[in-house]
Parts: sequence; structure tokens; C-alpha cells
Amino acid sequence: MKCLWNEEDILTHAHFEPSLLKTAHTLRVGVFGATGYTGQLLIELLREHPHVRLQFATSERETALEDGTPLIPADSAPLDSVDAVFLCLPNGVSGSVAARAVAAGVRVIDLSADLRLESAALYEQTYKMPHPAPQLLPAPYGLPEITRAALHNALYIANPGCHVTAVLLALYPLARAGALSAAPIIADTKTGVSGAGREPKPESMFCEVYGDVKPYNIGRKHRHVPEIEQMLHKLQPDCGSLIFAPHLVPLDIGLLATVYATLKPEWTLERAYAEYQAAYNAEPLITLHPLGRAARIREAAHQNGAVVGVSEGQGNTLILTCAIDNLRKGASAQALQNFNIMFGLPETIGLL
Amino acid sequence: MKCLWNEEDILTHAHFEPSLLKTAHTLRVGVFGATGYTGQLLIELLREHPHVRLQFATSERETALEDGTPLIPADSAPLDSVDAVFLCLPNGVSGSVAARAVAAGVRVIDLSADLRLESAALYEQTYKMPHPAPQLLPAPYGLPEITRAALHNALYIANPGCHVTAVLLALYPLARAGALSAAPIIADTKTGVSGAGREPKPESMFCEVYGDVKPYNIGRKHRHVPEIEQMLHKLQPDCGSLIFAPHLVPLDIGLLATVYATLKPEWTLERAYAEYQAAYNAEPLITLHPLGRAARIREAAHQNGAVVGVSEGQGNTLILTCAIDNLRKGASAQALQNFNIMFGLPETIGLL
Amino acid sequence: MKCLWNEEDILTHAHFEPSLLKTAHTLRVGVFGATGYTGQLLIELLREHPHVRLQFATSERETALEDGTPLIPADSAPLDSVDAVFLCLPNGVSGSVAARAVAAGVRVIDLSADLRLESAALYEQTYKMPHPAPQLLPAPYGLPEITRAALHNALYIANPGCHVTAVLLALYPLARAGALSAAPIIADTKTGVSGAGREPKPESMFCEVYGDVKPYNIGRKHRHVPEIEQMLHKLQPDCGSLIFAPHLVPLDIGLLATVYATLKPEWTLERAYAEYQAAYNAEPLITLHPLGRAARIREAAHQNGAVVGVSEGQGNTLILTCAIDNLRKGASAQALQNFNIMFGLPETIGLL
Amino acid sequence: MKCLWNEEDILTHAHFEPSLLKTAHTLRVGVFGATGYTGQLLIELLREHPHVRLQFATSERETALEDGTPLIPADSAPLDSVDAVFLCLPNGVSGSVAARAVAAGVRVIDLSADLRLESAALYEQTYKMPHPAPQLLPAPYGLPEITRAALHNALYIANPGCHVTAVLLALYPLARAGALSAAPIIADTKTGVSGAGREPKPESMFCEVYGDVKPYNIGRKHRHVPEIEQMLHKLQPDCGSLIFAPHLVPLDIGLLATVYATLKPEWTLERAYAEYQAAYNAEPLITLHPLGRAARIREAAHQNGAVVGVSEGQGNTLILTCAIDNLRKGASAQALQNFNIMFGLPETIGLL
Repeated sequence: MKCLWNEEDILTHAHFEPSLLKTAHTLRVGVFGATGYTGQLLIELLREHPHVRLQFATSERETALEDGTPLIPADSAPLDSVDAVFLCLPNGVSGSVAARAVAAGVRVIDLSADLRLESAALYEQTYKMPHPAPQLLPAPYGLPEITRAALHNALYIANPGCHVTAVLLALYPLARAGALSAAPIIADTKTGVSGAGREPKPESMFCEVYGDVKPYNIGRKHRHVPEIEQMLHKLQPDCGSLIFAPHLVPLDIGLLATVYATLKPEWTLERAYAEYQAAYNAEPLITLHPLGRAARIREAAHQNGAVVGVSEGQGNTLILTCAIDNLRKGASAQALQNFNIMFGLPETIGLL
Repeated sequence: MKCLWNEEDILTHAHFEPSLLKTAHTLRVGVFGATGYTGQLLIELLREHPHVRLQFATSERETALEDGTPLIPADSAPLDSVDAVFLCLPNGVSGSVAARAVAAGVRVIDLSADLRLESAALYEQTYKMPHPAPQLLPAPYGLPEITRAALHNALYIANPGCHVTAVLLALYPLARAGALSAAPIIADTKTGVSGAGREPKPESMFCEVYGDVKPYNIGRKHRHVPEIEQMLHKLQPDCGSLIFAPHLVPLDIGLLATVYATLKPEWTLERAYAEYQAAYNAEPLITLHPLGRAARIREAAHQNGAVVGVSEGQGNTLILTCAIDNLRKGASAQALQNFNIMFGLPETIGLL
Repeated sequence: MKCLWNEEDILTHAHFEPSLLKTAHTLRVGVFGATGYTGQLLIELLREHPHVRLQFATSERETALEDGTPLIPADSAPLDSVDAVFLCLPNGVSGSVAARAVAAGVRVIDLSADLRLESAALYEQTYKMPHPAPQLLPAPYGLPEITRAALHNALYIANPGCHVTAVLLALYPLARAGALSAAPIIADTKTGVSGAGREPKPESMFCEVYGDVKPYNIGRKHRHVPEIEQMLHKLQPDCGSLIFAPHLVPLDIGLLATVYATLKPEWTLERAYAEYQAAYNAEPLITLHPLGRAARIREAAHQNGAVVGVSEGQGNTLILTCAIDNLRKGASAQALQNFNIMFGLPETIGLL
Repeated sequence: MKCLWNEEDILTHAHFEPSLLKTAHTLRVGVFGATGYTGQLLIELLREHPHVRLQFATSERETALEDGTPLIPADSAPLDSVDAVFLCLPNGVSGSVAARAVAAGVRVIDLSADLRLESAALYEQTYKMPHPAPQLLPAPYGLPEITRAALHNALYIANPGCHVTAVLLALYPLARAGALSAAPIIADTKTGVSGAGREPKPESMFCEVYGDVKPYNIGRKHRHVPEIEQMLHKLQPDCGSLIFAPHLVPLDIGLLATVYATLKPEWTLERAYAEYQAAYNAEPLITLHPLGRAARIREAAHQNGAVVGVSEGQGNTLILTCAIDNLRKGASAQALQNFNIMFGLPETIGLL
């Protein structure tokens, strides 16, 4: 499939003409795994998207969404009726469906972890199962503010998770500039409960979360550590390794990453901040706070973009904050952003 | 005033005979500033204490507590009727009352910040006002697990605040052993709203806190930084400096400090953990988790003690967690613990 | 000022042509009291409204909103620069500004209580102060689903409060049909904290609300009782009187009214439900649930409309539920709905 | 087993001599179903009870509680080792274990619904299953403030649920006095999530409850309706029938019943309140508010008793409020209260 609009539209945003789009043809999409939090929100976003028609949505257990959208089993999904599919499926399952769709000439945005790591071996070590579609690796990685160039016309895209998105957006300008010292990078994240998914689990029950703040899988144990480091080391091979400490907080949505990073000796706070301005000032979905103002969850909740703050720590150590809505920029809205880029649509259509 | 019970009681705990205490005389106390969260909780705790009689409680605005306790203005408080006073007063006011009480031969537990810093100059720089009672400096610092020896028979005690208590308890065994490297120590704390006091303020309103996690005064800006460093550098003069990032979370009570500290090269995780066991295994108000298990707020909320966890970070960097109830071990319960020690009572009377 | 679009547009909705509106002139508005929750939200809604230009916003204490909107003192507001003003001012103040604006030929939507009661005497008895603008009474009452006919071309409109909106929407179809018996009508409401406004008050502090459900001003004490009864008795003079029991719940936004109403003996549940269908099925901002399904807050929070449920109680007593967003359909969105009607715009512009 | 202490102790409370109890023998108990919220809390309470030794606790899935208490399967529980058992088992299962225990001469406090309804037929209609132990019906009903006389030396006791406890305590003084008219009694309850148990269920997930207030099973549908009416009609056969509307609120614990009841014409508010004073002033676990002050959840959460308020509604209709901790006075603390009465212990031992 060729790009429907030329790339200048995307670069300029300003001169884009909605009326032209209206007369262009509509993209037909399907959603696999429509009943989880990300699937439901994705469908909401797709319904508001002016150039998308939802052809099908799947679920193995339910037959309709609350709003009446009919659901079909994944096996019955007519891949030949769509231009693209979004996969909100469990790890291990999603990759197989991705492979099937790609083989059928259907574009794929995979919200699972299956295509995020570039090496099947690392996947197997991290997720403790064989990779379901090693032939698709390495996949274009869909964090547009970092990897946009690789996403135009991509046939499939691995959509990053919420913690990874927030931590990488907090660090990207420094890593891109090679400014990080070899000292460990510390990412202390605070996440709402929806990040754990809609499946009933003891640790997601109201009474288990209410009144608590709980660190979990801290240190190097969380499965997102290799994913974050994969990107960081690609951006700056000599940066320090990651210490990652997620905390569950009593919120439904929202994620804040507080990242402590040490600059190389020749860097100053001001020079570092200039890198953030260079990286983010033109980004439509990133709000960069003035130097010294930290991001907070409220600023990003229910929003499709991210908020980034750069604050002084002590000496050469900075405190970087990034707030996102874990289900939006941390999942479904980013998936739509990737979709827009993939098809050459203006990047923020349906998102602003 | 002499110690009412001999010191062995305190050391042994076990052989303490409640019935003896019952026949001994009761300590008469007063509470200045009874209507704030710490004052109210302190009065609750004092009412359950078998050797205390509350003689008066003060407030400038209210005339009785909800439970009927009458309140008098501070100026009318009969200092000559009590053995000790607890000061839950604003910074700047509390120190003057402390000086007056000490001059009258009444023992003082000061819950404000006035007596916490050892130097009046540092106080003035930190709190932007003249010190109200420089003649009392340096005051015995009431974090018993660290400073117990200085508290027996003390005439007055500076009671530390909640963030400071949690961060210092997380670091104490390492600092005492000289194990900390010169790298910055990072303390990322998550605190409930009651830490901001009972005074109506825009940032403590329900709608401002609900649904948010908010970093505030991060880096070196918070007034507790000098207080934490004062103790750390006393314990280990060559340790790194502090980066302190408090976060407000939507809880009424509870505080979690997640502290990232780097060991000197010759230290291992196991050796470090052994220091925690040595420091805390016999402490009646500290629960030390097995190595690798992090503390969470739920474990400490509504409890008078602290919960400490030691987890692996990466390389020589550890993740130390300390959860407390900010109003109890972070304020009023610790004040009572200090009172017990000051008067030679068994340390945990009224607290376990 | 004449109506800019003819009334058929409003009646049909369907044939309305946005492009025509675009070429028509824009309505210029001002907001008095822009820093409270309702003022802020109203400005957000106005910014998205395609036919509105915000000319000024006032505050006596702040000089700009967070988004940069400049704020001026009310006294400096150029009334001659606007077609209409929205008043988000305190009771007692708002009425005076309304009178001034009306005198200047500017249309008024008053979100305060000043114009809601039809009699100055009842106002004085209820609000314990003289009425600031008795010459404006009785004012058109802006609950469009009930009073729409009186609002077209109205020069000023009294915008009802949140409790009143929910209780009246729950009862309207029955009262209109004369179906209510003379037994007392019981309205048990559950409201989020933003209903108490943005002013810091002890009872709106996080720690006072968290973990609690609190009845307040129950029985006949709440100032909204006369406002609700004024409308009910107009709709059905022989209906029972109101028992009103508001409860504060730990939510930022949202309001649920659970209303217990007894039908006259000749009425059945089914006949009653048919009245709800007749009243609400064509209403663009009301969602009527199938008979037996109750409304819940989640369905209405962050939405501009109301959700209504009709359930069986026992015998001739029904349980009626109405959920709204207290700041939207309970305040600012309803104000915009009234504005749209007042100026002959399609009623849901900027709201759906 | 005979009563260990004479009844006067219970009636007077004051002259009870703890030291005598200490030398008396200890009661040995077992808990069936120790891992749910009520089982866990019950074990906590039992551990603090001075005359109880916990002999065993059962679970079919777990082998130890968090505090290390070993758990055994119910089938292995040595009934011959205990004086009494507490049953925190599912409906349908609990009754069978109760029958087995009673047959073995072991006293039973059953926290399930199995023994609450007096008729097996009504049970089958309500719970849609055969009654597991009809030979035990009718069982002494353990709401001590109402039924105390029937509980001394009872061999088994049906422990009421949380909604029932709150609604009946709100109405008891009126029903006992025959003051209720024949008009429907409306009970609008607001309950925390722990009432739904510890089992993971979609509707108890954090993200489903957060930000919502949800009516459920309203009208006559809830299974507690027959249980409440059974007692009400026993107290006052000519009282009105019940309309019951439970609402789930975003709290972990706590329950508020707001009850609207109409008095017979000859009754006044003051006379009604006098009945509350007569019924509750001497009750150690009931706090009766002054006339006109409503109960709120905060007053009862984490407490073992109930708080009751009587407020004016309109005309002859009163607003009665009762707040309890749903897991304490609504379950486990009441079970212990019943146990104390059953064995002739002072009623509030372990509870105040």
C-alpha cells in the first residue's frame, strides 16, 4: 500500500487540509483483543478518527462491547477486509497473529511485548517462552518522538509499553546527545492500576491497592529493563545501566517516571536543557516544562501526549520527570500515533 | 528530675513489671498545639499510656477537642503543673515555648523543626527566620534507633519529621558502618497528605490531590535536606550528598522512602544486609524484611513502628525502602517513644 | 438582539449546516469569576465552541489562568465588548453584576443561586441576605429539558445547581404527568467534593474526605430544598414535599441522586417508565437506561449530559437514579447549553 | 459446657475482675475460612483476646497466613480440640460444617448467611439452593443489642451481615416501640468494597470502583431484604415493608445506612429519640449522637461498635443513620461479641 498523503504534510502539519482527507478513502482496521483497557480505549479513539472504519473487533469471551460493538473470535476475523490491525493480545499470542497478518499483507500495530525486543533470545530469557514470530525481528519500534523515521510505511510496528515510554522520553534528549555518564540511571516510576490490565487479579483488587504505595519487581527484575536498555544503548552505547523501581499507586490511570541521571563532567544543566528544547519543542504530543518545573500525573492523565520536566538534582545529577496517561501515550494513543505515521496521515489526527 | 525507673528496665524490656509502674507515680504532661493532626493523635496516644496524665492541651482558636477535652490558650498553660510538655506548634513559635518550659524545669519534646538543626545559622538559612531559642542548640535529636544513648534523661528533645525519619532509618546501618560511597544518595519519597498539616491550603484540597502524583521541592530545595545530611555526615563524614525528591500521593497517611545508595567497592549486598540485621533485629519498633523484599506503605500505616527493606539494585547500588505512618513513627508515636526514653520508662509503653 | 439562526435548526438538529455558522458572526462572551472550578471548566468549553470568542475573564485575586488567559478585575470588565456574560460569582455578588449586565444590554447566564428562586422573600429566608437584584425575578430557569421553551431569546437565565439538576431530572417525567402521590419524595444524593468549590475549606481537605461518606444538611436544611420544590410544585402542585439528604463521597467529580418517589395508586411502573421515554428519548443530553437499570456516577463523569434510571422499589414506590458530572451538566456544560438555546444555536454545539 | 462466669458480670460490667479471668481456663477456638477479610480480621481480634487460644485455622488453598499462622484443610480440623468454632465459609458450605460441629458438641458462630433465615424454604428461595442444615433452624440470631437474651449459652449463633446490622440498628428502637407506620421503610446504604470479599471479581477491581458510586440490586432484589424484614416484623408485625438500595462507594471499609422511616401519627421526633436513648445509652458498643447529628463512616471505621444518628426529615418521616465498620461490627467484631456472650464473658472483652 502506498502512502496516501505526501510526507510534507507530516513535517509541516500546518498546511494540512482536512477536507482533502475527507474525500480520500478511509482506512479499514480491525482490533484483536477488544475487551481489555487498551482495546476498549483504542476503539473509542478509532471511532473518533476521521479516516478510519472499524471493520471488526475480537474477543474470545465476550460477544459485544458495552456500546454494542459486536465482538468475534480472533479466528473468525476477516483479515482480508482490513488495511491494518491493532493487536491488544497477550504476550506470546500476539506475535503469532502479527505474523499471520503480515503474511496476509495487512499492516500491524502490536501493543503486546512480542515484537519489542530485537532478539528472540533476549525475549525468551525475559518472557520465559519461545518467541512466537522470530522472523519479524527486529521490528520497527514505535516511539515516534525517537524513532519516527523508521515508521513511515512500516509494515508492522512494535508499540512500547507505558513504563518504557515514560522512561525513554525522560532520557532521550540526553542519550541522543551522548550526555549520560556511565553511572547507573535510576528510574523510579509511579503507576496507576490499569497498567495491570482488566483481568481480575488479587493484587489489582480495590482493597489491595487502596491506601498503599507498593514497590514491585524493583532493581533489574522487571521485564521492561531490557527493553529500555535496548533503546538507550542504541542511542548512547556508553551510557550507564538501568535501575528500575516501579511503584503501584492508588490511581486508575496515569504514570510518572522520576529519573535520576548523571551527566558527563563537561555537561551543565543548561546545556542539557537545551537538548530537551531541541528534541521536544516542535513535538506536537510533548509538553516540555520550563527548566526546574517537574511533571505531575494530573497534567497528563486523560491526555494523549506526554509532559516532560527537567530539574536540578545535585552536582551533575539531574531529575527528569515524565508524566503520561499509561493507557494513552503509554498504549492506545501511541498506537494510533504510530498508525497515523505508518499510513502517512498527519501524526496527530484523532489525538489532539 | 531523676529517672523514675532504672535503666535496666529499658535494656531488658522483658522483665519489666507493669504492676510496679501502676503503683509508681504518674507523669503529668501538657500538649501545646492540640488541634493539628499530630497534636490530636498524640493526645489519643497519651490517653492510652498507663503512666501519663494529660494536664492541659492548648489551642489559640478552638476551645475543646471533638472528644470534649478542653483547650486553653498557650499563654494560660500552667507549666508548673506538668513534668513534660509536647510541642506541636509552628516553626518559629515552638522554640520560644521550649525555652520557656526548659527554664521552668519542665521537660520538652518539640515536634516542630526549631530544635532539629544544630546550628542557628543553618536554621536561619533554611527557615528564613531568626532562631527562636539558639541557647538550646544543639538539642538531643530524637530518632531513638540512632540516637538512643543521648536521650535518657534529656531535658529536651528535637523530634524529627516524617521524611527525615524514613530516609535516615533506610540509611542508618550503612552510614554507621561507613559503607556509603561518595556518590549522591537519592531519596525518592511518597507521602500522604496529612504531612502537610490540618490547616486548609489549596494544595491539600481533595480535588487537588485526587488522581495525581506530584513531585514537589525536589533536588536540594526541601527544608529537610540539611536535617538529613546533618545526621548522615555525623554518622559517616565521607558519604555522598543527598538528592531528595518528595512526591505527594493520594493517601491520607503513610510515607514510603525509596532510597538509592551506592556502596564502597569493598562492600557486598550480603555484607550490607548484615549491617541492617545488626542494627534492627533487636529494635522493637523496626520490622526488617528479608533481603530482597521491599517495604510498602500498607505495612506501616496505622502502626507505630517502621518497616525497612533492602533490595538489590545494580552493581554496588542498593534500593532501600522504609515505610512509616507519617503521623506516628514520623511524628507523634516517635514523640512518645522519646518521652518514654527520656523518663526511663520502657520504650514501647503505649506504642505496642 | 435578534436570534441569529432560526428556531427550526434547534428543533431539527439534523439539517443544521456547520459551514453556515462558520460564516455567521461569532458571539463574544465574558466570564466573571474565572478561577473557580466552574469558571475554569466553562472557559475550557468556550474555547472549543466554534461560535464563541472569549473577550475577557475576571478574577479579583489572580491575574492569569494556568493556560495563560489573562484575568482582569470584575470592575474593569468591558461589558460593551460582549454579547453575553457567564457569572461564576458568589451568591449575593452575582445578582448585582447580572443587573448591571442586563441594563447594559448584555445577555446573562448566572451560575450562582441569585436568580434561581422566583421570590426575593424566599431568597432572603434561604440565603440570609437581601436579594441583590429583585427586579430580575422571576428569571427564566435554565434546566433545558424542563424549561426549554422559556429560554429561547431569554435576556438572562438562572443556571441551576448540581443537586437540583439531578433531582429534577430524576422526577420531571412523573411530575409533568401528575403521577406523584402526596407522600414525601426522598432524594438521597452522593456528591463529589468539587461541588463545594475551589476555596480552601476545612471540610474539603483531602484528609477530611478520604475514607469517609458524610451526610450533611439533611432533611429540609439544605438551601436547595426550596429550589427543587419550586419547580416540582410548578410541574405538579399536589405532589409531596421533599426530604433531601446530600452525602459527601470521596470523589473529585460526579453526583448521583437516588430518589424514592411514590406514584398515585392508578399508576404502574410501566406507565411511569413510558413517561420517561416520552420525556427523554429525544433529548440529546439525556441517556435513559432500560427499565430496571440504575444510573451510576461513572457513566456521567466527564460527560456533558445526564444518565437516568428507573427501577422498581416496592409497591407504588419507584427508585429513580440520575447521574451527572456536577461541574458539567450540573454547572458549566448546562450553562453553555443554556447559552446555545438563548442565542438560537443548535443546543449541543460544543457539548457533544 | 456451663457458663464460666455468672450473668451479673455481664449486666454490670463494672465489677468484673480481669484477674479472675486470667486464672480461669482459656477457651480454645478454631476458625474455618481464615484467608478472607473476615477470617483474617477475626484471627487478629482473637489473638488479642485474653481468654482465647486459637487452636487451628483452615483454608483449602493456602497453607499459612502472612503472619505465619499455619492453615489446614477444613477436613483435617480437629473439632475435638476446641470449645468453639467460627465459620467464615461460603454460604451453602458453612451450614454443613456448623451441623458437624454442633453434633460434636462444639459451639458455633456462623458468619455465613446459612443460619440467618429462620425458614429453610425462605433460604432456598433467597439463595437458590437447598438449605445445608435445616435441623439447626431457627438459630439464635446474633445481633446482641437486639437479641442478647437469646445468646447466653447458645450452642450456635447466626452472625448477621453488615448491611443488615446497620439497617436494623438504625430501626430497632422504633420497631421495638411499635412506632413505625405502615409506609415503606427506605434503606439507602453506602458500602466499602471489602464487603464483597477477598475473592478477585471484576466488579471489585480497583479500576472498576475508583471514581464511581454504583447502586446494585436495588429495590427488593438484594438477598438481605428477607433477613432484615424477618427481624423487623418480629419486632413490630405491622411495620411497613423494606425498600433497600445498596450503593458501592470507593472505600475499602465502612458502611453507612441512611434510613427513611415514617412514624405513626401519634409519635413525635422527640418521643422517637427518647426510644433511641432508652435502647442505646447503656450499650457499650453503640454511640448515639445527639438528636439532629447524623452518623458518618469515618466515625465507625476501624472501630468495633456502631454509631447511630436520628435526624428530622419532614413531617413524620425521620432520617436515621447508622455507620459501622463492615468487617468489624458488620462481621468479625460482632462475631466475637457473640462469642463473649455465648460463653458468659464480659461482652466487650477484646473489643474495647
